[in-house]
Amino acid sequence: MLDPVALIRRKRDGERLPAAEIAAFIQAYMRGDVADEQAAALCMAVFFRGMDDGETAALTDAMIASGERVDLSAIPGTKVDKHSTGGVGDKTSLVLIPLLAAAGFPVAKLSGRGLGHTGGTLDKLESIPGMRVDLDRARFLDQVQRIGLAIAGQGPDLVPADGRLYALRDVTATIESPALIAASIMSKKIAGGADTVVLDVKVGSGAFMKEAALARDLARRMLAIGRAAGRRTVALLSDMSQPLGFAVGNAVEVAEAAATLRGRGPADLVELCLALGERAGAERARLERLLADGSAFAKLGAMVEAQGGDPRALEVPERLPQAPCRTDVAAPASGYVTQVDALAVGRAVAELGAGRRHKGDAVDPAVGVILRKKVGDAVRAGESLATVLARREGAGAGELLAAYRIGAAPAAPRPLILEVL
Amino acid sequence: MLDPVALIRRKRDGERLPAAEIAAFIQAYMRGDVADEQAAALCMAVFFRGMDDGETAALTDAMIASGERVDLSAIPGTKVDKHSTGGVGDKTSLVLIPLLAAAGFPVAKLSGRGLGHTGGTLDKLESIPGMRVDLDRARFLDQVQRIGLAIAGQGPDLVPADGRLYALRDVTATIESPALIAASIMSKKIAGGADTVVLDVKVGSGAFMKEAALARDLARRMLAIGRAAGRRTVALLSDMSQPLGFAVGNAVEVAEAAATLRGRGPADLVELCLALGERAGAERARLERLLADGSAFAKLGAMVEAQGGDPRALEVPERLPQAPCRTDVAAPASGYVTQVDALAVGRAVAELGAGRRHKGDAVDPAVGVILRKKVGDAVRAGESLATVLARREGAGAGELLAAYRIGAAPAAPRPLILEVL
Repeated sequence: MLDPVALIRRKRDGERLPAAEIAAFIQAYMRGDVADEQAAALCMAVFFRGMDDGETAALTDAMIASGERVDLSAIPGTKVDKHSTGGVGDKTSLVLIPLLAAAGFPVAKLSGRGLGHTGGTLDKLESIPGMRVDLDRARFLDQVQRIGLAIAGQGPDLVPADGRLYALRDVTATIESPALIAASIMSKKIAGGADTVVLDVKVGSGAFMKEAALARDLARRMLAIGRAAGRRTVALLSDMSQPLGFAVGNAVEVAEAAATLRGRGPADLVELCLALGERAGAERARLERLLADGSAFAKLGAMVEAQGGDPRALEVPERLPQAPCRTDVAAPASGYVTQVDALAVGRAVAELGAGRRHKGDAVDPAVGVILRKKVGDAVRAGESLATVLARREGAGAGELLAAYRIGAAPAAPRPLILEVL
Repeated sequence: MLDPVALIRRKRDGERLPAAEIAAFIQAYMRGDVADEQAAALCMAVFFRGMDDGETAALTDAMIASGERVDLSAIPGTKVDKHSTGGVGDKTSLVLIPLLAAAGFPVAKLSGRGLGHTGGTLDKLESIPGMRVDLDRARFLDQVQRIGLAIAGQGPDLVPADGRLYALRDVTATIESPALIAASIMSKKIAGGADTVVLDVKVGSGAFMKEAALARDLARRMLAIGRAAGRRTVALLSDMSQPLGFAVGNAVEVAEAAATLRGRGPADLVELCLALGERAGAERARLERLLADGSAFAKLGAMVEAQGGDPRALEVPERLPQAPCRTDVAAPASGYVTQVDALAVGRAVAELGAGRRHKGDAVDPAVGVILRKKVGDAVRAGESLATVLARREGAGAGELLAAYRIGAAPAAPRPLILEVL
């Protein structure tokens, strides 16, 4: 018989919890026999005492067991899933998934929504007119089988324990536990059924993890969980001190992703997609070819079409929602851009309406920012640093300006890919 | 505006919380704007990060403000209240309160119920036929004014925030926080209105605090809160490695307390009551005289009578509830008693029915134990160590025997009063 108070006390006092008791606690929580206050107390005790890899794997298993697993076994080939810990201007999924699909790796990606200053893939996709991301499981699987890729909302039946625990952690200041974050992410990846899980762990001001050591620890924990579950799991640490690419917002990121798939992408975004694609098991030269010859772009178009969206919007960005006001942010001095603070840009864009403050809020697909200058670029006073796309004239310009630092000399370049794990 | 998540996070990260924010959190909790899971997370964060004296005093004030204060100002003299952190065989209140009342210190004591292996004063009093402890506030105050003493249940209007928080802490493994314990105890003492608060902090196996350092820390915290609230506050650390006196149970402790007030008390109980009485402000010689001349006993009788009880039961213990079965526990060997483990005795007596497992359980007034030998006593094999008073023949005898250790030589005596603060 589970004694939830004794279990909380043991974690509180630094003991290791046996897998069977972790499973019993999660089951009892989902049944209603463990109260929210008890789960909150346990999460806070875990925040302070941590969980080792065995405990974290057990928690992941227990959370997965609260719902249904996606069965991809009927789909031939090595199925890949990808997760980013969240960043600003991070449209990597919109490029990488079609690219992997074109390379013969089926991708069945279930996503959550964006929250706070980081954007969500589902929100970005929904800026495409007609695009649906609420596919039922049968349609989702059929689409992957048929065209090799699908991106959809994960739905309430995938790891419901994570849904409840995450909402609880959100109101009890217990989000920031590496063990709980790792279990939360990996439970959904494992339940999602892929053979290979590619993790992009962001580091920097715009990322959840501001320091490389913390990001590395999170990556290491996720790799351990994935491998314990028998999934090939790989990870990169990538820079999120400035936004990825030039576009930040919903429609503007779709347009940039489409351009990237047509061979006209920003260097950092292209490089990150190639590096992640390689880690997933594809050859770099092949991926470059699939970007150059339009195959990857065609996959995105096929997915958009299959999900009810207008694929022409990928070629003609004017078909995507447009913000009425465009304001250029002028450089106050000449010199070199030494910082484009990703957090500040992310917050400014969220404030324009592209992000949601609370779960369930609507997002504005049209607003955003197009950066004109990034770290290392030379700039003359009065030249545009960025263009703000807003509902009101001048909105966001001050915030964007504040995100920039201009120095007399170029800063030492920061590597995009910090570590391959 | 209170942001409860930010407040939890700040305590979690080791920050000091301002008094106004602690007050706002407690108010919001009582209003329902802070959820139980948030209060639980804060309690667990406090368990790990602690609270300094200023924070603890602010928490105490905030909890007091959730209910009514008892106004004793109409009663002349220095009103005294007393609190023990709980022990086994601890009938000190039943002796000390009449003794102080006889010495001219009015005592208006509001008590909670016993829980677990420690007995509660209200339960003990209720073993007296007819005795009522559910006095309303007016009757309670009138009785103190008239005869100088009353002991009653604290009722739900005294520090309701403590009632809710304690119940929450009980199910979330957050009881064991010195700051939260100190605030919980002192909020009720301060709201109770006394001028002088006498604290008996128990140390040892039968106490909540097993080690002197922890007990000293708790005492120090309570003294700081009491003094911050402008109350004369004094404390003793006293031994609870073996039960206090010889009787453990409800009716048997009333009988022992009555005998003590008639000058026939166990040396340890008498000594503790005199030491606490002195700390309260009375002269030792006077207290001894009031025990010897029957004045203190008369006060207990007056209180029992005023609260509907049969005062003759204090002179004729056979009028108190009697257990049907008496079993002597024979010493297995000759030697000296080196240990009578208070926790083991307390648990055995609770198991006989004298304690409650859950709040609201009924207790059996008749069952208990009378110790025949205590630490330091010589014993011959076969001689009685203790007499168990039970509902079933032989119940509890094994547990009592297991509480005893008999050695070849007497153990070094342990002082009863470990420290005067």
